Parts: sequence; structure tokens; C-alpha cells
Amino acid sequence: MIGANTDWAAGAAWMEGKIVPIEQASICVLDWGLTHSDITYDVVHVWNGRFFRLNDYLDRFELSIGKLRLSVDQSREDMRRIVHEIVARSGLKESYVSLVASRGQPIVPGTRDPRYCKNHFYAWCVPFVWVFQPEVIERGAHLYLSNSVERIGTKSVDPTAKNYHWGDFTSGLFEAKEAGFDSVLLADAEGNITEGPGYNLFIVKDGLLKTPPHGVLEGLTRRTAMEIAESIQLNVEAANFDVEDLLEADEVFVTTTGGGIVPVTRINDRIFSNGAPGNITREISETYWKWHEKEEFSEAVNYS
Amino acid sequence: MIGANTDWAAGAAWMEGKIVPIEQASICVLDWGLTHSDITYDVVHVWNGRFFRLNDYLDRFELSIGKLRLSVDQSREDMRRIVHEIVARSGLKESYVSLVASRGQPIVPGTRDPRYCKNHFYAWCVPFVWVFQPEVIERGAHLYLSNSVERIGTKSVDPTAKNYHWGDFTSGLFEAKEAGFDSVLLADAEGNITEGPGYNLFIVKDGLLKTPPHGVLEGLTRRTAMEIAESIQLNVEAANFDVEDLLEADEVFVTTTGGGIVPVTRINDRIFSNGAPGNITREISETYWKWHEKEEFSEAVNYS
Repeated sequence: MIGANTDWAAGAAWMEGKIVPIEQASICVLDWGLTHSDITYDVVHVWNGRFFRLNDYLDRFELSIGKLRLSVDQSREDMRRIVHEIVARSGLKESYVSLVASRGQPIVPGTRDPRYCKNHFYAWCVPFVWVFQPEVIERGAHLYLSNSVERIGTKSVDPTAKNYHWGDFTSGLFEAKEAGFDSVLLADAEGNITEGPGYNLFIVKDGLLKTPPHGVLEGLTRRTAMEIAESIQLNVEAANFDVEDLLEADEVFVTTTGGGIVPVTRINDRIFSNGAPGNITREISETYWKWHEKEEFSEAVNYS
Repeated sequence: MIGANTDWAAGAAWMEGKIVPIEQASICVLDWGLTHSDITYDVVHVWNGRFFRLNDYLDRFELSIGKLRLSVDQSREDMRRIVHEIVARSGLKESYVSLVASRGQPIVPGTRDPRYCKNHFYAWCVPFVWVFQPEVIERGAHLYLSNSVERIGTKSVDPTAKNYHWGDFTSGLFEAKEAGFDSVLLADAEGNITEGPGYNLFIVKDGLLKTPPHGVLEGLTRRTAMEIAESIQLNVEAANFDVEDLLEADEVFVTTTGGGIVPVTRINDRIFSNGAPGNITREISETYWKWHEKEEFSEAVNYS
């Protein structure tokens, strides 16, 4: 029931044409989005009442939908309108906003053919999610590089279509948390460093920035960090690196929609930049938040 | 609303202590069971009003829950009672019954730590699901062995904890269906044949049966097929084999809770046993259905 006491500030969702409080937003237990994790999503954030790079997030979401061969009834402009409406309804000035497209259920009874399902779109927003808490960003994150769990291979699941296949991350998170770390980093079967749950990784060595080129989500915060680096005359390249390169870096940081540019001050036993966020990381982070005010990157939510 | 017109024959579910019609069974869009596919399940079937090997399925489900480090409030006997109740309510004499345990949502606001979530159990039943339609079982299934999609590696996601990470299967199914096949088979990164979406695989060569030993779900229908083979003095071993062994087999069949022992008469361009189900496959299949009447393997649903 939606009434005068509805707590919209906990979040709002758009489900089948209606805006509902977040706790009423659910999908059927038979939906293949759940039972086959046959689903894609994107996450865009609202900061200080403004969407950041919404066009770029919508571009990526549309690409993910195409890669999974999903088809939804909503146009790009419908999606834009819907996320604006749910954030306005929630009243949230800082929000984590998710767009989702799911395979749905078969339209031919009994079929196991993914071509014959009723795909569907939904969206929800909740208060801003910090993938790393602000106090961790302040001190620098401590990451655990797993040597037992491998990132799911790209020949199995395409990481550039943003997905809910987090089994590898979950196993890694248990290891990391029990060893006292904030989060986990995974390498692939060839030993290339990839990414962590919800974030991309950068290393800085002798002023050159590197981030893994493939086998990872093409993060929008990753792209923003690369653009910022170029804007301040730093060289940045998408290139593979292994654990040795990682541990020999001068600075390390990760990028996430859920918190921006996050300095890393420790990986396993290695302490970086004397245990404090590095200078290049700090500069990129400051610029990242400044860019949120740029007209070309942000658009205001109309809360009235 | 549940009323006199409720169509229980479409299925029933147990959600948070209540039995509801299947179309009302849903989980929150924020549940990590969905957003991280951090969830495990099992499927047991009811045939002719009797559960088949329910104890063995409950054993495996409990093992999966442990492997994912989940903890639910329901005891094994609660789960047994619940699945009996939902099938009785549905009135279904042939049913596909699923038990599910999900990570749930954080109990510590804002945490990303899987140790601090409210795990939960639910269950549902629907009319019997044929992973291969009866007419396909009659003629023999045509399978497509993908050479582009790899099964998710065991160092990323443990396939023995039954899971919803089906991205590899979904990609493979698109390939298979578009090429006119019934379903898909995947190999691992080393070229070992593994399994398909919802089934294990057996080959028969010179009277010896082989099924992949690891990197696959330890299927209960697979186990039943192994026990039947032994009961009729056939040798069976769990051993790796590659595409060459597969294509040189005399007979091939797959095993699934959703249909039992399914003969395979074609893989890519190779036709097996002159395009008709093989003799050993037929014998195991007949025995499989006979065993459903055995007291030690089955228990009656009380529909009254």
C-alpha cells in the first residue's frame, strides 16, 4: 500500500509502469533474470541533485542489452524519464540508481529457448551506496589479492555486459573479509590482474597510469579517470599487468560509481605510498568531484 | 489475493511462512540472491504423486548451502514438510519442485560484506518441467557442442553447489537454437567435455560408460544412472574425456531431473546409433522409471 506514511527516502522503483516504494519492488521467483542470472543492468549516480554522465550510462546499458540479445519496450528516452521520475519521487539528492533488463519468463509454455521470453525493464533508486565507506576512502583501501579464486573467464561470461554473475567475487570477499581486508581483487587464469566487486583498478608507475584493457567492465568512472589523467598531461594506457607489476606500483587506486576514485594503500603485505593516498590519486579524485558540476557531464533532477 | 478462483495447479510457493499461488511468489530487487546471484537451489521432482529420492536431494541442498556459507532458519525436516505442503496444495501429481536459499539483504546498513546478510529460504513447485520435450526424448536429442563458449571455470564458481550462473549456458543456447539443435554442450578451458544447461552427460563405448568426474554438477539423475548401470553389470566410471572421445562413442545420453535419461542421437554433424536411441540408453531409461515405484527411493505426497 502507498500512503501518507510511505518512506520514499528509502528508495523508489519503477515496476511495470508504476512507481512503488523500494520495499515493494520485486520480481517473480520464476524470472530467468533470477533463475539463469540472465539479466543486465547499469548503475548511475545522482550527486547534489544532479545525474552524472547519464547519457554515457544509457549508452552502455543499451550496449549491454544488445550483447545479451534482450529487447525491452522502453526507449532510451523512456528510461531517462523513468530514472528522473523515481529519483524525484524519492527526494534523494545523493542516490544510487539502477536500470535493469531481464530475460523474463517464457511466452511459449515449457520452452527452454531464451529467444522466446518476455523481456522486461525496471529501475530503482536508493540512497547513495558507498562500495568503500568514506572513512576507508580517507585512509586508503586495503585489498586482498586472491590466489585461489579466479575471475570468471571472458569466454564464459562477457564482463563488458554488466552482469550479476558475482560468484567469484563473493568467494573472494569471504577470503578478504576474514583476513581483515576491505575488499578483494581477482586475477584471470593467465595471471593478469582484472578487477574487484564493483570497481576497476589503476596502477601508477613513474607517472604512467595503467588499467587492465579487457576481461573487465568498461567502467564509466574508469573512463572518467582516464579522461582526467589526460586533461592533466598524465600518460594513461589500457594494458595487461600481473601481480609483480601491481606490487611494484608507486600508487594504486580503484574506480567505482559507488564512491569515485578510491586510493589503495595496501594489497596483501605490501603498503603503498607510505600507507597514505598518493598524490596523483588525490589529484584525480579532486578533479573527479569537480567535474560533477560541469554542465556537459551532469543534468539536474527536477524535484518539484 | 487468494480466493476460490486461485489457480493452484499453475504452482504454489512457500514464501516467508505463507503458501501463495506461484504468480505471487517474488523476491526483492535488492536481494543479493538476484543482484550478486548469491543463491543456491535444488530441484526434486514428484512423479505419479511421489517424491523421488527426496532425502538425497535434501542432502545435496544442505551441502550447497554449506559451500556458499549460507545459513537459513529452516531445518531439514521443515524443508521436507514445506515441499510436501506446497505440492499437496497445488494438487500436482507430476511436479518440478525447487528449494532455494538466498544471501538476502544486509543487516548492517550499507555493508558490502556477505557475512552480514539475512539469508532466507523459500520453495516453489510448478507442473513438471521437461528440459527436453517428450517427443525429443523419443527421437533422441540433437546437441550442439559449442567451440566458442567455455563452461565457467571451477576456480571461479563451484559447479557442485547448484547455482544460477547460467551466462555461459545462455550464450551457448542461442548458438545451439539458431543452428537448429535442441540444446548445447560446453567444454572447459582444457577441452574436457563438461555438461549442458540442466543436465549431465554420459558416453558409452564398447559397453563402458563414462561421465565427467568434476567441473560439473553431481546430478542425482546422474547418480541414479550410475547405480542402474552397476545393477545391470555395466562398468561405469567418472573420467574426463574430450571431443574426440565424445564423437567416437557408440551411444550418448544425458541425465536430468527434468526428464530422466535422454538419448542423444546427434552432436553437431555426428549421428549416433543410426539416429535412434541406443540399446543401453533404452535399458537404463526403462529402469529409471521403474525405480520411481521403489519404496526406498520415493515417498507419497498426502494430497487430502
